[in-house]
Amino acid sequence: MKIAVLGGDGFVGWPTSLHLSDAGHEIHILDNLSRRWIDTELGVQSLTPMDSIQERTRIWHAETGRRIHFHLIDLAKDYELLKGWLAKHRPDAIIHFAEQRAAPYSMKSDRHKNYTVNNNVNATHNLLNALVELELDAHLVHLGTMGVYGYSTVGAAIPEGYLPVGIETPDGRTVSQDILYPANPGSIYHMTKCLDQLLFQFYAKNDGLRITDLHQGIVWGTHTEQTRRHTQLINRFDYDGDYGTVLNRFLIQAAIGYPLTVHGTGGQTRAFIHIQDSVRCIEIALNNPPERGSRVEIFNQMTETHRVRDLAELVAKMTGAKIAWLPNPRKEAPENELIVKNEKFLGLGLAPTTLGEGLLGEIVDVAKKYAYRVDRSRVPAVSAWTRDIAAKVEHDPEGKRLKSVS
Amino acid sequence: MKIAVLGGDGFVGWPTSLHLSDAGHEIHILDNLSRRWIDTELGVQSLTPMDSIQERTRIWHAETGRRIHFHLIDLAKDYELLKGWLAKHRPDAIIHFAEQRAAPYSMKSDRHKNYTVNNNVNATHNLLNALVELELDAHLVHLGTMGVYGYSTVGAAIPEGYLPVGIETPDGRTVSQDILYPANPGSIYHMTKCLDQLLFQFYAKNDGLRITDLHQGIVWGTHTEQTRRHTQLINRFDYDGDYGTVLNRFLIQAAIGYPLTVHGTGGQTRAFIHIQDSVRCIEIALNNPPERGSRVEIFNQMTETHRVRDLAELVAKMTGAKIAWLPNPRKEAPENELIVKNEKFLGLGLAPTTLGEGLLGEIVDVAKKYAYRVDRSRVPAVSAWTRDIAAKVEHDPEGKRLKSVS
Repeated sequence: MKIAVLGGDGFVGWPTSLHLSDAGHEIHILDNLSRRWIDTELGVQSLTPMDSIQERTRIWHAETGRRIHFHLIDLAKDYELLKGWLAKHRPDAIIHFAEQRAAPYSMKSDRHKNYTVNNNVNATHNLLNALVELELDAHLVHLGTMGVYGYSTVGAAIPEGYLPVGIETPDGRTVSQDILYPANPGSIYHMTKCLDQLLFQFYAKNDGLRITDLHQGIVWGTHTEQTRRHTQLINRFDYDGDYGTVLNRFLIQAAIGYPLTVHGTGGQTRAFIHIQDSVRCIEIALNNPPERGSRVEIFNQMTETHRVRDLAELVAKMTGAKIAWLPNPRKEAPENELIVKNEKFLGLGLAPTTLGEGLLGEIVDVAKKYAYRVDRSRVPAVSAWTRDIAAKVEHDPEGKRLKSVS
Repeated sequence: MKIAVLGGDGFVGWPTSLHLSDAGHEIHILDNLSRRWIDTELGVQSLTPMDSIQERTRIWHAETGRRIHFHLIDLAKDYELLKGWLAKHRPDAIIHFAEQRAAPYSMKSDRHKNYTVNNNVNATHNLLNALVELELDAHLVHLGTMGVYGYSTVGAAIPEGYLPVGIETPDGRTVSQDILYPANPGSIYHMTKCLDQLLFQFYAKNDGLRITDLHQGIVWGTHTEQTRRHTQLINRFDYDGDYGTVLNRFLIQAAIGYPLTVHGTGGQTRAFIHIQDSVRCIEIALNNPPERGSRVEIFNQMTETHRVRDLAELVAKMTGAKIAWLPNPRKEAPENELIVKNEKFLGLGLAPTTLGEGLLGEIVDVAKKYAYRVDRSRVPAVSAWTRDIAAKVEHDPEGKRLKSVS
């Protein structure tokens, strides 16, 4: 297949591009490289030293003989360029990662809120709009998030996208209907993924677009089979308070002797998936497109759920790290249960890579190798959900600031 | 109260501004005048001769001694200007009409789809974002649409925003929950109002904004008590295929001897409200803000439902007009039932102005007075929902084109 990977330079986009290229597909990465710009804006960098996208694809070609093509296009801003590119290349499938993907970044300031809404909504809508305009029947696979469901405890398992509900009619009967699971986003970022869902629903209904939406859990790990093949194919690995994700942060914190930063009680239960499984799921989704005219296909792309404090305790036990119990910069329930259905990927052959000390240890080793690149002042999560919360955020979990005063 | 009316130069915005000014409030209209530009783009004009906003407000002052202030600001594009204005004026309430509001216009082309999404989402989000940034506790009243509910026949009455549903738990119990009524928009325009709903839900939850969302039916009529006071205070009255709404179009068509344009079987049941009630409802909503921290307040702003073909037949009977049964440019159910709850406004004192021959006749008279301004070629609804449908659209319900060939 000819596949366009939008946002193919990112944390999951890059290993997905390699994985699919390795499987024999013709890969075209479309990316505006905004994530690299945001590193510059925030004054942070990936723990792992990443090469430019051009250099990465050159190395991939040298190692495997396969080409990955790169096109610098801003989906959200350059509708005509995107449309022109799609008209010329007419890909069979499109994988859409091209959105600002950090909840804390989306809550940093009014500018960041506007940027996230504007970028994410327009990127998704421009794409859908162009597919219709070009009558291009490419299968669109979108990376969504488990966060669209929210984390309020209803007591029922979270289904894969659609919830069967009973609705009472005036004459006392109960009619059963499948509805899109009621959106309950916890940040501006998560909200944009809820907006995406409605865009997809409309374009599938009105125009028969074939769309798969992957509601992904928190991705952990950094290597996949392909990124291991050469130092310069290494994947991005974020540790900072905005882009670093919880389990990866604990592993890096353990590696650099930083206290594990648990926010609130650590009672948040979240869904997780290893990055190797993430790229495999995307491949499975690609191979199982919905029929034209059917509703949006939705998968829960996760393999297990864990409570944040349990993960911290696991990593602490494994590595001897200390845990820092910090005020929570997010506005969220302190504790929640989470039961998630993921039978669809399992039924299509996914063999989950679950949390094991071996794999966790390997990640700690990667982190140790590049520990010299860490700016410890960038570790705290300081982007707060409201002004009141911001006043209570802990900027210095190591207590360094106090020491320097004494 | 000091009230900002965003989009106060529009079809409902203008009479709302007059009504609230008349009631003693300090009114500030913020508008980018995009609706006037769209008239220019489409080469159409209001049936009624509208003066500039500056002239209209001058006349209002001359007639009543009251000032309505006008500020040219593009909400969707000029976030910093909007924020600066709000910081300076700190209104007590904000009424938000500032969105592209025609479903057919939103479906005209890819450019119009992008414009509608971009304009409507950014206008709403910029506003919410600025309110939080400024810690401005103004009550926000938004004009939404009944179309967010969709027109699929579930058999249950449409509640005011929130639907109680039963959800089955793994242990066999049924948990009851109130959810935002599942969105089922029928056009890009309607979809943007569904996106708005999620933005409101998030900002009410995260930031405690006080928001009222009015799900309005199709507005008919043109005059209100205040627009009648002077010829130059006259309201806009659209007859064209994009911006004209169904009942007003029938009345104008009857006035100019054009066949009444029914699309499909005319079996579409829709909710309606007279413009005089529309402005009264907005005033009632203003006077009944939700508590800070509570969920978004939602009212169904409509007074009656009618089937389109029944309206056509009523107008035909009243005026002797013929009915033209035309292919439907929209993708929608040919027939639907619609039962809508509207007890909240009734409970707060709304006395509905329902469809009566007297009022309908008055509107026909207005249309007759200005009939000389009509461009008949702009009457057909030609913006189609898909390319397949576009091929079947009737561009000439009067059959003029055939005649000129023979």
